[in-house]
Amino acid sequence: MFILVNLKAYPCDPVEIATAANTVAESSGVRIAVAAQAAHLERVSETGVETWAQHVSPNGHGSFTGSTLAEAVADAGAVGTLINHSENRRKLADIDGSIEAAERVGLETCVCANNPEQTAAVAALSPDSVAVEPPELIGGDVSVSSADPDIVKDAVSAAAAVNEDVDVFCGAGVSTGDDVVSAGELGATGVLLASGVAKADDPKAVLEDLVSGL
Amino acid sequence: MFILVNLKAYPCDPVEIATAANTVAESSGVRIAVAAQAAHLERVSETGVETWAQHVSPNGHGSFTGSTLAEAVADAGAVGTLINHSENRRKLADIDGSIEAAERVGLETCVCANNPEQTAAVAALSPDSVAVEPPELIGGDVSVSSADPDIVKDAVSAAAAVNEDVDVFCGAGVSTGDDVVSAGELGATGVLLASGVAKADDPKAVLEDLVSGL
Amino acid sequence: MFILVNLKAYPCDPVEIATAANTVAESSGVRIAVAAQAAHLERVSETGVETWAQHVSPNGHGSFTGSTLAEAVADAGAVGTLINHSENRRKLADIDGSIEAAERVGLETCVCANNPEQTAAVAALSPDSVAVEPPELIGGDVSVSSADPDIVKDAVSAAAAVNEDVDVFCGAGVSTGDDVVSAGELGATGVLLASGVAKADDPKAVLEDLVSGL
Amino acid sequence: MFILVNLKAYPCDPVEIATAANTVAESSGVRIAVAAQAAHLERVSETGVETWAQHVSPNGHGSFTGSTLAEAVADAGAVGTLINHSENRRKLADIDGSIEAAERVGLETCVCANNPEQTAAVAALSPDSVAVEPPELIGGDVSVSSADPDIVKDAVSAAAAVNEDVDVFCGAGVSTGDDVVSAGELGATGVLLASGVAKADDPKAVLEDLVSGL
Repeated sequence: MFILVNLKAYPCDPVEIATAANTVAESSGVRIAVAAQAAHLERVSETGVETWAQHVSPNGHGSFTGSTLAEAVADAGAVGTLINHSENRRKLADIDGSIEAAERVGLETCVCANNPEQTAAVAALSPDSVAVEPPELIGGDVSVSSADPDIVKDAVSAAAAVNEDVDVFCGAGVSTGDDVVSAGELGATGVLLASGVAKADDPKAVLEDLVSGL
Repeated sequence: MFILVNLKAYPCDPVEIATAANTVAESSGVRIAVAAQAAHLERVSETGVETWAQHVSPNGHGSFTGSTLAEAVADAGAVGTLINHSENRRKLADIDGSIEAAERVGLETCVCANNPEQTAAVAALSPDSVAVEPPELIGGDVSVSSADPDIVKDAVSAAAAVNEDVDVFCGAGVSTGDDVVSAGELGATGVLLASGVAKADDPKAVLEDLVSGL
Repeated sequence: MFILVNLKAYPCDPVEIATAANTVAESSGVRIAVAAQAAHLERVSETGVETWAQHVSPNGHGSFTGSTLAEAVADAGAVGTLINHSENRRKLADIDGSIEAAERVGLETCVCANNPEQTAAVAALSPDSVAVEPPELIGGDVSVSSADPDIVKDAVSAAAAVNEDVDVFCGAGVSTGDDVVSAGELGATGVLLASGVAKADDPKAVLEDLVSGL
Repeated sequence: MFILVNLKAYPCDPVEIATAANTVAESSGVRIAVAAQAAHLERVSETGVETWAQHVSPNGHGSFTGSTLAEAVADAGAVGTLINHSENRRKLADIDGSIEAAERVGLETCVCANNPEQTAAVAALSPDSVAVEPPELIGGDVSVSSADPDIVKDAVSAAAAVNEDVDVFCGAGVSTGDDVVSAGELGATGVLLASGVAKADDPKAVLEDLVSGL
């Protein structure tokens, strides 16, 4: 299981969380990455943690002021990127373009989708993974296993029917080690979570709990 | 073969073209529809031609000023709608929502996509059809059969691999009856065209040519 | 005072409300207009009521599938249009373009803004009017006179400082005849309202109340 | 005169240009800043040059994945930001929000606009400066003084009529020291340029020429 922590624009210290994530990843052997604001990527990657961007634009080099150029994100140390997060929905053609831009510079891609049909649609564009985020679970306290386990199973089936090489992550309803285990049992190979870590009083303790059942 | 004429925002007389399309459809027995500006739908549908919208919004009834409500479009006589045209690209989640909105009121859906991968992605959302529009052919004089026939074949295969119930239309490079026949031979069950009819000096003659080989 | 009723995408009968608005306008001598879905403009204008669009696109004739062409809106009988409603926020350059497009075909323009600073900004683009919509009042039951009268006064001053020819409408917090009178006392020359009429059991009675103090 | 160099997403070395800009600024005493990709801000600011972002989002801290948080941009060393560049047009309400977000963290703001009317509109939102970018001059070889000097003069007048505290920069048609002098004579207090420096074989030589007449 892969644990991908999205810091969003939360008022947390990205370096503190990145350092904790790196420590827990090394001690547990579990893969953990931190997705940070573009302007924070350089300092986050300097902690040694696996560093992801929260978005990359579909464009390449050129006249694109204010874009998030995949090459710049990679320069700053990112090795992966989220695309089409529910807070940052993108046009279909641009999701396709952003995946291509990310692959051009070697960034791993995780595209978000909010139901099994959209998961299948995204899988057809061949990203490395799709994070299915049932809207009713985003940012809430309800665990995916208790609330809507079928949506993860259905997303896993839907993606596999279109493209067997695409992993499915559980993109909401994960805040504890039990949730991570449940997500894995439903067929997910990773989890995408945010506030559970980024808003925690003790992010390291939360991360240790998240990996505890693996 | 289905011939879908998109009037875009061209400075044509929508009623004149709709009347011509209706006449040619009736005389030839070929299915022809006209996609008009929302504000023109009522007068276009009154000609008796099969009438399509150029877009519907994902929302239902509610506080959505300036949206293109599927129910309103249907009230005005539309029986189908384009979604995600290359001049009107939409977010993946909204394409999904617009298909759902259209189906809710019985509108047939044709979602545009500009390559085989996006065609497959759209097919996963189960519209009635996908129009593949190779960007290099849009608005040009080059026929699909001479320029890039593989993109239509590949789109047909890609859609079928994901969802066998989804038709594929050829969305660019069609301006003559020969092009319509070629599109059919490549596996398309319809063509989406615009300027070839809407900017013609004699739209009726163009429509007669388009159906001549069927 | 001008009473502009925005039907949004509400599940009301646009023809019934338009007919009521036309009757009340004629009997009272107060100017009343109805802003409808683009696809409903033709049937609304046929009632004889002053008809407005809810949005027009900045483009003119051309390859703009799914746009709301000002010319088409005018063809359908609209004589005015909202631009940049809070449910349909637009880019600054496109607000400028939409005002120009509307003026090109003789549509009166009312651009929405949600505070005095944005009202001044919009006034610099020379629309016919600006509707100030304090976000905290939109869709609520609180009248503008009791909740936040200064925002209307400040918007009137701010607009006048930039462009004396631009009227200011009160875009929220209006549901009764007293509210209309209060809006006028604050310097507004019109009111923009929606649910108060569109969701009413008896829209005509509401309209009669709205004009009762004028 | 202030010289603001926008690196866009050009395939240049941002550190090399930043270092050159810092050297020329120090040797000439002219204020020069470099606007970089968000992911490059940290390395650019480490050169000591005045560092600007190319965009900031209107949001503050919170659930805003993929946004460009003003606080993060400031963390990385930026002291100013472009907003609403012609390649990154924004909604009016978001321009207002982005100015507020930038000011909250002490970033200087330069909002782009493409004609005198939009310059006045932006001035009403009280940024520190507006860069007027006549679309016909962007990215071209024609100098502002030879092509369309009135647009700069008109923008200066239009801004002053609305808000005397807002500076106007010349946002296109500047590539030489003569152009900088001409811009100043037209009333601009700064210039915004991009490819002239970012695509130059010898950026330092171009920068030295730009400041040569001051």
